[in-house]
Amino acid sequence: MTSCAERSAPVARVFRGTFMHSSGSAPLHILEDALLGVNEQGKVPVPTSPGFQGAPFHPCREFFMPGLIDTHIHASQYSYTGTALDMPLLQWLNTYTFPTEANYKDLNFSKDVYTKVVKRTLKNGTTTACYFATIHTDSSLLLAEIADKFGQRALVGKVCMDVNKAVKHYKETPEQSKKETNRFVHELLRRNYPLVMPIVTPRFAVSCSPQLLSHLGDIAKNNNLHIQSHISENKEEVNLVKELFPSCQSYTEVYRKHNLLTDKTVMAHGCHLTDSELKLFRDAGAAISHCPNSNISLCSGMLDVRRVLKSKVKLGLGTDVAGGYSPSMLDAIRRALDTSKALKIKDPQHETLSFEEVFRLATLGGSQALCLEKKTGSFEVGKDFDALLINPLVQDGPFDVFPDDRGVSGDSSVIHLHGDDRNIREVYISGKRVVPFQKSL
Amino acid sequence: MTSCAERSAPVARVFRGTFMHSSGSAPLHILEDALLGVNEQGKVPVPTSPGFQGAPFHPCREFFMPGLIDTHIHASQYSYTGTALDMPLLQWLNTYTFPTEANYKDLNFSKDVYTKVVKRTLKNGTTTACYFATIHTDSSLLLAEIADKFGQRALVGKVCMDVNKAVKHYKETPEQSKKETNRFVHELLRRNYPLVMPIVTPRFAVSCSPQLLSHLGDIAKNNNLHIQSHISENKEEVNLVKELFPSCQSYTEVYRKHNLLTDKTVMAHGCHLTDSELKLFRDAGAAISHCPNSNISLCSGMLDVRRVLKSKVKLGLGTDVAGGYSPSMLDAIRRALDTSKALKIKDPQHETLSFEEVFRLATLGGSQALCLEKKTGSFEVGKDFDALLINPLVQDGPFDVFPDDRGVSGDSSVIHLHGDDRNIREVYISGKRVVPFQKSL
Ligand SMILES: [Zn+2]
Ligand SMILES: [Zn+2]
Repeated sequence: MTSCAERSAPVARVFRGTFMHSSGSAPLHILEDALLGVNEQGKVPVPTSPGFQGAPFHPCREFFMPGLIDTHIHASQYSYTGTALDMPLLQWLNTYTFPTEANYKDLNFSKDVYTKVVKRTLKNGTTTACYFATIHTDSSLLLAEIADKFGQRALVGKVCMDVNKAVKHYKETPEQSKKETNRFVHELLRRNYPLVMPIVTPRFAVSCSPQLLSHLGDIAKNNNLHIQSHISENKEEVNLVKELFPSCQSYTEVYRKHNLLTDKTVMAHGCHLTDSELKLFRDAGAAISHCPNSNISLCSGMLDVRRVLKSKVKLGLGTDVAGGYSPSMLDAIRRALDTSKALKIKDPQHETLSFEEVFRLATLGGSQALCLEKKTGSFEVGKDFDALLINPLVQDGPFDVFPDDRGVSGDSSVIHLHGDDRNIREVYISGKRVVPFQKSL
Repeated sequence: MTSCAERSAPVARVFRGTFMHSSGSAPLHILEDALLGVNEQGKVPVPTSPGFQGAPFHPCREFFMPGLIDTHIHASQYSYTGTALDMPLLQWLNTYTFPTEANYKDLNFSKDVYTKVVKRTLKNGTTTACYFATIHTDSSLLLAEIADKFGQRALVGKVCMDVNKAVKHYKETPEQSKKETNRFVHELLRRNYPLVMPIVTPRFAVSCSPQLLSHLGDIAKNNNLHIQSHISENKEEVNLVKELFPSCQSYTEVYRKHNLLTDKTVMAHGCHLTDSELKLFRDAGAAISHCPNSNISLCSGMLDVRRVLKSKVKLGLGTDVAGGYSPSMLDAIRRALDTSKALKIKDPQHETLSFEEVFRLATLGGSQALCLEKKTGSFEVGKDFDALLINPLVQDGPFDVFPDDRGVSGDSSVIHLHGDDRNIREVYISGKRVVPFQKSL
């Protein structure tokens, strides 16, 4: 909040209502019946003022919460969401994923799927998405263009992989991958989209030669870029990485050694990381994207989020479409709670995550994991106004409401446990309303 | 199908489309582009004729499936669904459940909640529900009346309990409970609703004296009634029952001894049953209602459904609202898959349930668990037409559809994994359309 004076500007619009968000000190702050101003730049210039004493407002029971942050989603896999979850990771990639992703050399196909996934995630309240596209540069640029067009905050990665034994036509040489990544990054930076940025994206250690990993580490370093990949998703993969990189002490070390473990890195899964690997994450300031739906659906493992948080490693939530079958971050919230509870069933000493803590992971935690906490994740002064207007009482909605529901925090729990896109009445990103969609789009 | 000739009657209406349902021999039969007749009595009089060769029909991608069967739901707890899941079972009952249930002495309050829960479950495709009400006879009769009014097939139980140390005013004496159960059963049978029946409902062994259990066993036996209760939900409860009934060798034995374990019994949960208890279930022909959302939400345990099926014990799925936070059987399907996959993560030898098997549990399995398999659960000849017309392509629906989706079985998987009430275009029970609701209601 110290930056308030520097950043302040005239308030362009004032939102009135109940606001809930998280901070480092508390997972859930509720400001009932308050005022929040947004300036011309889409930022929150002054603190939300609580306790507004005007005409009674409460009966409508709407509230604002920060936009949801999906720290790991494969836009290119959206076309088969909800099918094909009948095998473990490595087999699943070979059978379903690689053949599908190869189709994205076709820009018409790409445009159809990418438009649908951007619109769908926006409707579901995802104001920031960290996307995997495919190895195709122009198609990946198209995803960035579509995210920009609909106003979504996004990190977009052209996927890099030079090893693929199962689908031999879906890979690059290390030199191609380096050249195309450079082309992707520079073209995307040149376009200067206000909310869309490139992210360096080695698929995972199994699909990348050491040479390619080195190239990508260099590109990230030289351009100060974000990095994303996968790590320790299932045990077979962990063992395979040990075989493939015998000189590295751990899976994490493979990335670290190639300059791919930085404070702008987010790694999906991490179910089977050792304590010493978590320490490498913490020391690097790297983050984990917890994707519980995917981990359960593919029987990959269960991440102990409590352990990660205690290790002081940054953590956000991800849908991991299509390993996860739901493109909704509300689902990710539910499944994160489930996983925590499943761990407690196994070990009664396990301290489950509270609803409030998971809410924080889906908002503020995600912004930290993506190194975007100065831009989004809460309603703190100086951040952009990325917000959802939630209506628990919507007509033909997914649940019934009762007079004795337990106030704002009860409504919030109900929404997070069984609300859906019907309850997300409006979505704002950087102060601009993006849902309902503009008619011109 | 041998009873076809006896039961046949002129066909009153013909449904055309793709039908999917389960049988004992296969968890998923798909009949594409077929015809199904329904007679004046709402029954299926002749087999579905496959391979209809008429005008092209496929592009709409709709299909019929059997109505979903919720084998365990507390109608009276619906008012706090989605809140209050922060403590284990016994504490949860004392803190949230008993105080809420005590409110149902008020018939106006009852009418509001019971109307909402019947309409909501119908919209969600629950054509048969096995309800717990509360200890209040008139309020429980009101639930039966509302189910009848909206055309839902239902078993309705007035709850019986004479032990309650936490909320002392929410219990009966054994004699009151016996008298009121008799009044409830006889009044409900007298009303002769075509689809709504009484079910004898001791809450669970912890809440019932041996004397009350004996009374209820007698009532069930003398009137050949269905029976429902809870068993082995969490470990604390199992230990408490051991203390309370020292002369019984097991929790299951408590019910068996009092004539409450019959081939018309359905017991919720059973997470911690021993092999010898499963054998008692099988020998009695009693069923288990698997309520995975509730078991995870309250950290109660994880039922190994594969083990139950191998023990040849009948099993259906239940929502267990409000221990489960979702009143949708589609959620129960998803959580049953999750639980099976969580067991596999723990033990790689565990054979997970397939999507098709869980579909069968939610339809045919539920009908068997409720001893209603002659009436509902599939499109077999002689059964009532209890069906959902599913539309994957609905406008403003919860997911996107792609041209290359994997045919009817792919659509079915998508619906079951992330469809919702918006995809349930029509609901039929006993041949009558009940959703969309009749305007007169
Ligand atoms: Zn992934
Ligand atoms: Zn129950």
